[in-house]
Amino acid sequence: MSKLSTAARRLVLGRPFRSDKLSHTLLPKRIALPVFASDALSSTAYAPEEIFLVLSVAGLASYSMAPWIGLAVAAVMLIVIASYRQNVHAYPSGGGDYEIATTNLGPTAGLTVASALLVDYVLTVAVSMSSAMANIGSAVPFINQHKVWFAVAAILVLAALNLRGIRESGTAFAIPTYAFIVGMSVMLIWGFVQIYVLGTPLRAESADFEMHSEHGDVLGFALIFLVARAFSSGSAALTGVEAISNGVPAFRKPKSRNAATTLLLLGLIATTLLMGIIMLARAIGVQIAERPAEQLVGAPEDYHQKTLIAQLAETVFHGFPFGLFFIALVTALILVLAANTAFNGFPVLGSILAQDRFLPRQLHTRGDRLAFSNGILFLAFGAVAFVVAFQAEVTKLIQLYIVGVFVSFTLSQIGMVRHWTRLLRTETDAAARGRMVRARVINTVGFLCTGTVLIIVVVTKFVVGAWIAILAMGALFGIMKLIHRHYASVSRELEARAADAEDIVLPSRNHAVVLVSNLHMPTLRALAYARATRPDVLEAITVSVDDAETRELVHKWENSDVSVPLKVIASPYREITRPVLDYVKRVTKDSPRTVVTVFIPEYVVGHWWEQVLHNQSALRLKGRLLFEPNVMVTSVPWQLTSSERLKKMAPQSAPGDARRGFLE
Amino acid sequence: MSKLSTAARRLVLGRPFRSDKLSHTLLPKRIALPVFASDALSSTAYAPEEIFLVLSVAGLASYSMAPWIGLAVAAVMLIVIASYRQNVHAYPSGGGDYEIATTNLGPTAGLTVASALLVDYVLTVAVSMSSAMANIGSAVPFINQHKVWFAVAAILVLAALNLRGIRESGTAFAIPTYAFIVGMSVMLIWGFVQIYVLGTPLRAESADFEMHSEHGDVLGFALIFLVARAFSSGSAALTGVEAISNGVPAFRKPKSRNAATTLLLLGLIATTLLMGIIMLARAIGVQIAERPAEQLVGAPEDYHQKTLIAQLAETVFHGFPFGLFFIALVTALILVLAANTAFNGFPVLGSILAQDRFLPRQLHTRGDRLAFSNGILFLAFGAVAFVVAFQAEVTKLIQLYIVGVFVSFTLSQIGMVRHWTRLLRTETDAAARGRMVRARVINTVGFLCTGTVLIIVVVTKFVVGAWIAILAMGALFGIMKLIHRHYASVSRELEARAADAEDIVLPSRNHAVVLVSNLHMPTLRALAYARATRPDVLEAITVSVDDAETRELVHKWENSDVSVPLKVIASPYREITRPVLDYVKRVTKDSPRTVVTVFIPEYVVGHWWEQVLHNQSALRLKGRLLFEPNVMVTSVPWQLTSSERLKKMAPQSAPGDARRGFLE
Repeated sequence: MSKLSTAARRLVLGRPFRSDKLSHTLLPKRIALPVFASDALSSTAYAPEEIFLVLSVAGLASYSMAPWIGLAVAAVMLIVIASYRQNVHAYPSGGGDYEIATTNLGPTAGLTVASALLVDYVLTVAVSMSSAMANIGSAVPFINQHKVWFAVAAILVLAALNLRGIRESGTAFAIPTYAFIVGMSVMLIWGFVQIYVLGTPLRAESADFEMHSEHGDVLGFALIFLVARAFSSGSAALTGVEAISNGVPAFRKPKSRNAATTLLLLGLIATTLLMGIIMLARAIGVQIAERPAEQLVGAPEDYHQKTLIAQLAETVFHGFPFGLFFIALVTALILVLAANTAFNGFPVLGSILAQDRFLPRQLHTRGDRLAFSNGILFLAFGAVAFVVAFQAEVTKLIQLYIVGVFVSFTLSQIGMVRHWTRLLRTETDAAARGRMVRARVINTVGFLCTGTVLIIVVVTKFVVGAWIAILAMGALFGIMKLIHRHYASVSRELEARAADAEDIVLPSRNHAVVLVSNLHMPTLRALAYARATRPDVLEAITVSVDDAETRELVHKWENSDVSVPLKVIASPYREITRPVLDYVKRVTKDSPRTVVTVFIPEYVVGHWWEQVLHNQSALRLKGRLLFEPNVMVTSVPWQLTSSERLKKMAPQSAPGDARRGFLE
Repeated sequence: MSKLSTAARRLVLGRPFRSDKLSHTLLPKRIALPVFASDALSSTAYAPEEIFLVLSVAGLASYSMAPWIGLAVAAVMLIVIASYRQNVHAYPSGGGDYEIATTNLGPTAGLTVASALLVDYVLTVAVSMSSAMANIGSAVPFINQHKVWFAVAAILVLAALNLRGIRESGTAFAIPTYAFIVGMSVMLIWGFVQIYVLGTPLRAESADFEMHSEHGDVLGFALIFLVARAFSSGSAALTGVEAISNGVPAFRKPKSRNAATTLLLLGLIATTLLMGIIMLARAIGVQIAERPAEQLVGAPEDYHQKTLIAQLAETVFHGFPFGLFFIALVTALILVLAANTAFNGFPVLGSILAQDRFLPRQLHTRGDRLAFSNGILFLAFGAVAFVVAFQAEVTKLIQLYIVGVFVSFTLSQIGMVRHWTRLLRTETDAAARGRMVRARVINTVGFLCTGTVLIIVVVTKFVVGAWIAILAMGALFGIMKLIHRHYASVSRELEARAADAEDIVLPSRNHAVVLVSNLHMPTLRALAYARATRPDVLEAITVSVDDAETRELVHKWENSDVSVPLKVIASPYREITRPVLDYVKRVTKDSPRTVVTVFIPEYVVGHWWEQVLHNQSALRLKGRLLFEPNVMVTSVPWQLTSSERLKKMAPQSAPGDARRGFLE
């Protein structure tokens, strides 16, 4: 069965690569930046737009607050980055927020962070793909009209690529990421140059519409709430910032310093892009609304509201349509890359959780493609469910998105504060103490800041969707808790105790039984091997399913020079498993300290369809014999010629290798 | 994995029954008739209708030929039954046509019969279910409007019931079959009594329409072809007649005579119903057309053409609507029963083919529910495909149906002729010779007759659909041939040959390796068991996936009183399988005549989800170790408390048990 499932898996996953060794290359900063930054940078594609969308509820006047909200988001981002630079120095092992929370706040906090991150990965895929389709759909209307299906298809393609094991290369990350950075920079600079240097009056198409506010004038508390919501949505720009802290081991030495520098670089690029987009949008008068058909008066009948980025590109590169297309393409590409990030990060986090026994143990070992596959499928189906449920609307999905990130940020920062406090208790060196106190101040500011944002996010978004994310986190938390409890209870059951010593005392007799279906090479080998274990009793048994065949076997046996006696077990109902079980039970009942070793000759084959044709009865029997106490089951393999082809297959690269430093 | 698949299977199949023994009850004739006759009798529900439908192409005048065609079909049926009475006496083992063809004409003929029968089973399900929905749809218009979906749903429900293992009881067969026989008899007798005794002028609703022929006057060769086609379609009445010859072992003694008597009874009932339906239809003037909207002039706008049986019932029981409903219901029921027959017969035939190594071996052993399940799923999906492709139109499906039956009939009859000829060569007793000569005459007539029908069927139906059935048979034939060839080649490879003797010579050294992940009870038991096999070398190895854990294990090991040395294998890439494989290879390379026995402690658990949490790495390792020559893999099970609940589960009853004589 294990071979059969290998076969079934191979249909989906493709043949394992033949690779003798995976080289472990450390990443220089210029490659590390694109590998880890795509997620964080890509969020500038939707975060500014979401600020304008939320503000549009209060009408055009409120747009004047956008730059201030943008500044607040940028400030939070820089504070978070300053905090994470401390994390990177203190925890260079790559465990990230989960490790920090577990170490400093205990397993419950750690598990909370883990649940938040797992949900977040799913939402990263859903949001990024939806935004990618909205952006490319701004240049290609057909994609926009069917964006749900395109987003679903893209998720499934990405999942399939990851299942088959795409090789991550630095280039694959570098080209789209740098193309995005360069493309956006050119657009922003050329836009500002036209306006402020050349004096060209740039006006977005939507600038001439009249925007109707949804509820008339928004005042007082309602306005504050609205601004808070806009700020929450804009905080989506921070997602992905924590990625580098999980990837420190993949950096070149000095690892922590290089990682901290990359982190700073990332923060500067991201805040620059964020503010640049907001300012340019204000300068060219872009108007963008949640419900364009109702809110934008004066828009043509068939007006299709493009994404903010697309509107900027269209206006800046007016008369040069390739500009819009290029910007839409690189934006979509970096968003797809961000989604792929989740496909890589998910199994890595899963592996760490498995090590701590919150997920099935085998997820921990590398090269377990099946385990990785389950993670990828879980992620893909979760993301597809969200995309379909929210019709690939970024604005709706974003309501669920940011809770998880800020739960993780906040717990990690308070964890860091505790970390420094603990270290300060024993540290005596004045210079080191000074650094620690400074770091603790930074992390405290980080904690206060992210904690406040978390409260704002939960308050402004709970009703409109955040509750779904929180519910999902709770469910994951519960499941992982149960898995952990199960492992703990099994571990207690298995502990070596003196009381159970009789269970493991040296058995007094070894009764060997060789299962025979025919007198051929595998049987002869099994007999020889069984004899090599020098049992007290050695006998062969055969189950008589077909009278004629059994008679022939007995006849051949008697005429051969095999000295082991052959017992025939009757099977009136043409079963194999039960008669053998009954026989073994009878042997063990007579003398309870006897061990029965059942030798089963097995054919080893090279094709999955051969596996269907062989060994099925043996597999079932093995499965049942395991339930008998004092019975050992020994497989004596006979390698058929066809098995040669499978011998040299080696495990292939696993998703997330790049961010653990495995590169081709 | 084998346990995991058990779990997955259980989700679909339900928990195995706890049953200690299956009783083997032989069937009295009054139960054997319904068990084996539902298939053959049910075909009278559509065969007469198909005769009228084909004739309708030539207009109403041609209807006068229907009784003659009916008589021809009845004559063929009686001849076939007379022939099969010989089969039953000569081959009482239940192998049926496949056995007769194989024994007397060789394996190719046998395999041809088997392919024909397998395709036929699929079509039996498709045709019977489509006809059942058409009949019940005549009483319940809603079902008729969605007959494709109802037919598909019914097939899936039937498949699910068979997957879960419905217990077949004589009553379940007897009630619908006898209800059908009684219902139809009452309808026919009451109809004729009203017309010919009471003089009530019964007229079907459709009698007053004017029927337009499709092609004007049909004359000469075209008319002959049409009549031949009508006869071919009417021959569908013969399907299912061979069922009894497969079920002789389930009869009470004298088995063959009882089976032959039941066969005769079945033939008399079927021909009576067939002729009765045709005569009554003529008497009340039923008009039934392939395209009622075009052909039936004078029919109301929303005219929905009911089945022939329903039209008879409606007319005979005029003013008593329950009559129509009852007839439609029992007709549908016996048709569902006929479909279920295929679900039972398919795995039985599969088991016989597996015995002869044309299908995977394990299909042969009883109680292999997984194997049965695959057969049931194959059958269900095949039938669903046909139903959907032909929109549940009986008239279209019937074009494919009858080829297989008559291929089987014809080959079986010529096989019987050969059988008698061979026996006559040695038989000297005059009385016995007389009986044999007579039997040979009957089978020769049977062969000529069925052979002629086969030619007529192929000629008249090849273009309109029979080619699909023939293609499917060819494909199955090819696949089974390949499977057989594979088994033969493996068998040659495995034959004990002197040249390979060194492979099986007594190994000189037994090197035992116990795989350790932790120092707990299962490990201690594995060590004790390994020591009981008295190996030349005994050592424990552990793969270091996590440094801290390994250090802890080594420390515990050193402080324990375990005397076996523990070797730590480094695993830089956190793999388990490859380091162990490398180690084992190194051991075997040093001394090629050494056997390495790898002892793997395994947890035996009671819930499928526990299986997901344990043993997965061990399973993968076992799968890979099988490819190494000179390596034996021994599972040392440790039964966790939760495994107790699974201990006493027993195999449940299998589909087709009733027709092999297993009854509750």
